[in-house]
Amino acid sequence: MGNDTMELVVIRHGQSEWNKLNLFTGWTDVDLTDEGRAEAHAGGRALAEEGFDFDVCYTSRLKRAIHTLDIVLGELDREWLPVVKTWKLNERHYGALQGLNKADAAAKHGDEQVLIWRRSFDVRPPALEPGDARDPHAQQMYRDVPADELPYTECLEDCIARVWPYFEENIRPQMLAGKRVLIAAHGNSLRSLVMKLEGLTPGEILKVNIPTGVPLVYTLDRDFHVVGKRYLGDADAVAAKMQAVADQGKAKK
Amino acid sequence: MGNDTMELVVIRHGQSEWNKLNLFTGWTDVDLTDEGRAEAHAGGRALAEEGFDFDVCYTSRLKRAIHTLDIVLGELDREWLPVVKTWKLNERHYGALQGLNKADAAAKHGDEQVLIWRRSFDVRPPALEPGDARDPHAQQMYRDVPADELPYTECLEDCIARVWPYFEENIRPQMLAGKRVLIAAHGNSLRSLVMKLEGLTPGEILKVNIPTGVPLVYTLDRDFHVVGKRYLGDADAVAAKMQAVADQGKAKK
Repeated sequence: MGNDTMELVVIRHGQSEWNKLNLFTGWTDVDLTDEGRAEAHAGGRALAEEGFDFDVCYTSRLKRAIHTLDIVLGELDREWLPVVKTWKLNERHYGALQGLNKADAAAKHGDEQVLIWRRSFDVRPPALEPGDARDPHAQQMYRDVPADELPYTECLEDCIARVWPYFEENIRPQMLAGKRVLIAAHGNSLRSLVMKLEGLTPGEILKVNIPTGVPLVYTLDRDFHVVGKRYLGDADAVAAKMQAVADQGKAKK
Repeated sequence: MGNDTMELVVIRHGQSEWNKLNLFTGWTDVDLTDEGRAEAHAGGRALAEEGFDFDVCYTSRLKRAIHTLDIVLGELDREWLPVVKTWKLNERHYGALQGLNKADAAAKHGDEQVLIWRRSFDVRPPALEPGDARDPHAQQMYRDVPADELPYTECLEDCIARVWPYFEENIRPQMLAGKRVLIAAHGNSLRSLVMKLEGLTPGEILKVNIPTGVPLVYTLDRDFHVVGKRYLGDADAVAAKMQAVADQGKAKK
């Protein structure tokens, strides 16, 4: 890596309790499963084996991402690094779908509608009603966030509209100042970054499946053009993980 | 608690791997034992049972304090709170004693000298030589700290000289702004706070034994005078923990 390029490492959290149950999760604050923790350890070891080091870390306010980052930092012996936890990196809010079984949702609405809700650019799932127990306006976690910024549901476009400005205003300046950045987040908050960094179309980002627990390393020039992209770890294992993510929205036979 | 008082909660990390081996630890970055983790869980549950909540947390750069805080935040379902990790809250640096068995040191130098080194106000243990593997100047953890601020050894007076200004410049303004603060740290960095908050003499602070894993709640007026102090949890258990800490420096028979 020359002086004129920078690296950015992102990692998607491993399996959560609701991934395992095949439920729409969104902003529901479920923890990692043992398998999810094992994925995070493997991701951390992959970074350690290649000698990666960081200066500042970012994650969401959701414990499955925070714990993934904690595990990675443990593997790197870097528990002491500064960590910024921001709701702007939360998973896409899935509205009233949160808590539904994905297979049931697919059986009821059809594979296609579920895939549209999961992967569409600008179609929002049904919104939460104000007063719903799932409403972030009623949750302690967001007590410091202005009410009009909190969603009742989000499409990917909405998610990008909070993730990308956060990246540009907070993370980009850190990188330009020479800080090595690690981000632990979620399928759709990371897809938001991937789309903007790679300049993908809505149709292209729909096909991107970010594997869980696998560090993704971008090499960027100082204008944030991507000059390199690689996943750390065994290529076959990474491909299998991508396929597993792609299969998640399909109804169980 | 009236509007004119504030609460400050501090917690000392639970048993570490080197506490268990009875070694002088200081800045050595050893992890908690299973017992230490259990102590942290108990401390977190005690806070949860009394309905404590926080806005910002502080800890050292040492993983035994960071992990104690992580466990407490897990018990409070507050993983998402901001956490500031600062070397200014590190344990007192024990110089060339770090890594020595406490019983061997007591047998060699005498109970009295060891107690002086552990509890004196202004007598420093033997300093590390520059180039020693234990020298913080050579450690990644302190790569961002100006070299002239890093110690080769510290007495309690030295520890206070970094802990108290940090508290006054960083934590005090947060409290005055209404933020509820939780600090997870070490025997001597917490003793530094206790001495200054309570206005103790060097002779008095020598006798203070802060129990591990037990939340200590100060109620303070807005001039930071202590108007209340209590440990959370069973009084007999707290007393037994204090005695265990007081006994640590004595030679094993």
